[in-house]
Amino acid sequence: MTFLRCLVNGQSDPRVEFTNRGLQYGDGLFETVAVGNGEPLLWNNHLDRLADGAARLGLGPIDRALLTMEARDLAVDARHAILKVIVMRASSGRGYRGSSQAVDRVLSLWPWPQRQVSDKGVDVRWCETRLARQPRLAGLKHLNRLEQVLAQQELGDRFAEGLMQDTEGWVVEATMSNLFIGENGALVTPCLDQAGIAGVMRARVMMHAQDLGIEVRVEPLSRERILAADELFLTNSLIGVGVVRTLPERDYCLGPFAKELTKTLGRYGDVAFP
Amino acid sequence: MTFLRCLVNGQSDPRVEFTNRGLQYGDGLFETVAVGNGEPLLWNNHLDRLADGAARLGLGPIDRALLTMEARDLAVDARHAILKVIVMRASSGRGYRGSSQAVDRVLSLWPWPQRQVSDKGVDVRWCETRLARQPRLAGLKHLNRLEQVLAQQELGDRFAEGLMQDTEGWVVEATMSNLFIGENGALVTPCLDQAGIAGVMRARVMMHAQDLGIEVRVEPLSRERILAADELFLTNSLIGVGVVRTLPERDYCLGPFAKELTKTLGRYGDVAFP
Repeated sequence: MTFLRCLVNGQSDPRVEFTNRGLQYGDGLFETVAVGNGEPLLWNNHLDRLADGAARLGLGPIDRALLTMEARDLAVDARHAILKVIVMRASSGRGYRGSSQAVDRVLSLWPWPQRQVSDKGVDVRWCETRLARQPRLAGLKHLNRLEQVLAQQELGDRFAEGLMQDTEGWVVEATMSNLFIGENGALVTPCLDQAGIAGVMRARVMMHAQDLGIEVRVEPLSRERILAADELFLTNSLIGVGVVRTLPERDYCLGPFAKELTKTLGRYGDVAFP
Repeated sequence: MTFLRCLVNGQSDPRVEFTNRGLQYGDGLFETVAVGNGEPLLWNNHLDRLADGAARLGLGPIDRALLTMEARDLAVDARHAILKVIVMRASSGRGYRGSSQAVDRVLSLWPWPQRQVSDKGVDVRWCETRLARQPRLAGLKHLNRLEQVLAQQELGDRFAEGLMQDTEGWVVEATMSNLFIGENGALVTPCLDQAGIAGVMRARVMMHAQDLGIEVRVEPLSRERILAADELFLTNSLIGVGVVRTLPERDYCLGPFAKELTKTLGRYGDVAFP
């Protein structure tokens, strides 16, 4: 699988200098955006998260207008695709310390993956790879993703996703999605103040659930509570709401929360796709 | 500061495809090697560490002969320089899961920095940025280095280095060097099984100290023990052994261990420079 089009600092040449700080140190952020009918979906939410991440990493300011123009340029002819946006601190030579206030941009358009999440839900395992607890980086979608790389090596062909615990055993997220459980009539999703990525779709689901009058709580979640839950589903910007069918220890049914949320949010963000 | 020469997968073109997994996920390793009189110093030790790291990350095998040829090619005319070697999992499309057994190589030669470590020792501070505890990645010189980037932002102009604690408070290393203390006639350096980079020069110093009949211990080190130590020095492949002159709480003197070790190891690895 390769990309369809790209804009690297505004140019369609797919090459970057090896001195870029994304490669050297992972000193940047990224967004994975669903594109529907020529539009990057939930775009302002993705931009908000980039701006927040840039402030936390001390990157120079994000040029929202420029990123929007480039994102639309790439998305315009795509009926259904994936847009990946990377921003990173511009290079200022060798050494961890980056002094540049400039921000490099790498936007790329990718084909929508053929293997979709099944309507019947997915089979999920527990990953052995744990997430480190690091409050300075928790929540950010930054470019230091070796934990996810190692965790996905564990999935094999049988599992669509893997749940990840932090090094103290708390269940945080899956390798590429956030998680929610239904429990005693409320929706609960793990705290992300120590580890994990605060997904744009996670925030969207929380807000939408509250609009529907559903109680939503953010709490540390143990493995035991996941296994005792009434329902379990995963969220990200590409799958929207994805129901979990099995963990090795038990089966889950499609629950009332996932059923209700998918009605309006759709499986792929804000618009319905065939 | 920019690089002098480079070899990117054997070519002197400094550009790489943006799809490389170093940029996308930090999915690779690096080495920072001192070059003296046309030779990469401690080269086999650096290669050993790369091979070990590649095995732990599930990268394809490291081609030692090829890397050696390219390193020598870059170093041959350099009297005193820095060689940076990056190896990373070759791209196989979008997504955390990398399936390629191929390894991309980025070797670059950089000028030796003008501001050297003073003979009188350096002023060091405590960094607020903590290191996460992650046994799966501890010890590796991998490309996920946001913690070091954030920590170096704290140094300002006054401090040459900063000591880093892990999230439980144990002192692990400095932002770009390992640390040793002299304590009751023995040399002690922190365990790196939860966080930190196992430096090539750290291993060299430990071995050399043992050859000299000095007792060397690897232990968890508290901030209190650092502050009560008889002497404190830092090591990496560029500075060799670098004496700490001050922490904010106290001054240190040049101790017998640093004095003895620098006699034979030199300040810059195995060879003496003017």
